[in-house]
Amino acid sequence: MGFATNDDAGIYRLTEDIALVTTADFITPPVNDPYIYGQIAAANAINDVYAMGGRPIACLNLAAFPIKKLHVSVLHQIIAGALSKITESGAVLAGGHTIEDDEPKFGLAVTGLVHPKKFWPNSGARSGDVLILTKPVGSGVIFNAHIKGWVSQRAMEACIVTLTTLNQKAAAILADFEIHAATDVTGFGLAGHAFEMAKGSDVLLEIDMDQVPVMMESLELYEKGVTTGVNRHNRLLVEKSAIFEKGLPRWHEEIVFDPQTSGGMLISVPESQGAAVLKALQAGGVKDACFIGRAKEPKQSLNLIFK
Amino acid sequence: MGFATNDDAGIYRLTEDIALVTTADFITPPVNDPYIYGQIAAANAINDVYAMGGRPIACLNLAAFPIKKLHVSVLHQIIAGALSKITESGAVLAGGHTIEDDEPKFGLAVTGLVHPKKFWPNSGARSGDVLILTKPVGSGVIFNAHIKGWVSQRAMEACIVTLTTLNQKAAAILADFEIHAATDVTGFGLAGHAFEMAKGSDVLLEIDMDQVPVMMESLELYEKGVTTGVNRHNRLLVEKSAIFEKGLPRWHEEIVFDPQTSGGMLISVPESQGAAVLKALQAGGVKDACFIGRAKEPKQSLNLIFK
Repeated sequence: MGFATNDDAGIYRLTEDIALVTTADFITPPVNDPYIYGQIAAANAINDVYAMGGRPIACLNLAAFPIKKLHVSVLHQIIAGALSKITESGAVLAGGHTIEDDEPKFGLAVTGLVHPKKFWPNSGARSGDVLILTKPVGSGVIFNAHIKGWVSQRAMEACIVTLTTLNQKAAAILADFEIHAATDVTGFGLAGHAFEMAKGSDVLLEIDMDQVPVMMESLELYEKGVTTGVNRHNRLLVEKSAIFEKGLPRWHEEIVFDPQTSGGMLISVPESQGAAVLKALQAGGVKDACFIGRAKEPKQSLNLIFK
Repeated sequence: MGFATNDDAGIYRLTEDIALVTTADFITPPVNDPYIYGQIAAANAINDVYAMGGRPIACLNLAAFPIKKLHVSVLHQIIAGALSKITESGAVLAGGHTIEDDEPKFGLAVTGLVHPKKFWPNSGARSGDVLILTKPVGSGVIFNAHIKGWVSQRAMEACIVTLTTLNQKAAAILADFEIHAATDVTGFGLAGHAFEMAKGSDVLLEIDMDQVPVMMESLELYEKGVTTGVNRHNRLLVEKSAIFEKGLPRWHEEIVFDPQTSGGMLISVPESQGAAVLKALQAGGVKDACFIGRAKEPKQSLNLIFK
């Protein structure tokens, strides 16, 4: 695959029925707990393979660690957290690389397998499709506010449960259906990743703001004026191709620009299968999954409408 | 493969005749020129696949970049340098991940292929084998001294030519011979990587200090008292299992602890094939290749003798 559609991972065909999915991702710590940091960083990297419809098989640690400032047991905890998610995914940890650094960074390079004719691009949405999102958004602003003590323990815990969840179940359930396009929502926010899907698919995505699932306290934080360092950039990336129709206050709009780590899958499926897909996801434990909009014929240069 | 022998990369069997080799490596800049930095970092990562007898097929950039301090064209140059080596290796660049950081780091996650019964472990050396090293050592001290202006331009250029050279030719030539063990010499220095080979193979490696190829000016730098931040650590790792028999001055010993980036391959081959292997390497353009010692029966806890 080429780079034109900014897909979540690279695909390399090995044989008639085996293709490799390769992806790498690493992050600075969004939380203080090293084990949870490892879990989130690993889920974030592995989820790129699920976003392509693939199955992760082998992971490498990518670690930068301030060994003079922090005890090595902290690094061990990070790796233990990552290993818990690697093992849950059915993959193995095959090695990795660590360098000394002023500030910790951690992530994985992940190799997965997918059938070369059955992977899910992010660019196959068709007019008439319905859109499903499998996790709520808002983790970016929650992490930022948490540093300042502005997030309740309950909201923080709910956010961590969401982010440490692999998109494995979702991907396994979706494999039984006709998936036109799939991606996972990460750093560019819901708007950015929906924009890539819309542009790559040459459709207009209409997203219903009332339906977008949001994390506990995240909208209230935007209302109070909290934001992230990335929201402005994420808005700039899409604003020429997007409109907000509903006349929402600007702070409310920010939720679609909120950068996600280990976010949910955004999926475009035929309308005829939509209800069955959603029912299967919810019955299979992907309880936050919901419809958030539909794909339509493009209108001039417009790719996104938030209703 | 497991972790017991600290091999250069992970191996994952996909089918009867296809196994994946996965490896990741990233480094801080050893030189100021961003294009050369990219070349060295890429060669350093890709060489781990050659060290297993594999063929690289897909690479991902792993980049950390101070976008507020350096122009983005510097990052482009780094990636262009890496791409030149990826292309030379026959692999493709399939994507990657970049984060903002105070200081640049760059490397690759590399996926390669190898036959599951034909890969080269670092732990298969047998008593009676001869040892070949394909590149000179000394780049660690040269880089350290270069920052202070203590290295001639000629020596620096020779060092860069060596480090930007893939071990591709060497690996292709070696594939025609019976290779008992192979590794590439990197951060732990010749002593560290030879120690891993010796311990994993349960043999004693006898290395002839007069035969070890050294980079121009590197020994002189150690004689003047220059060293690297890693030499002491590399010596500590092996000193209980190694002896220097010749009564060399301590500064001379340091060359085997000099950490390499994109170093040569250390290979253990049957004595009966040694001359043919060396001749083929030199005829094939691996001109620095030379015999540096032999493998013998272990003596108590001793794994390394430097004669």
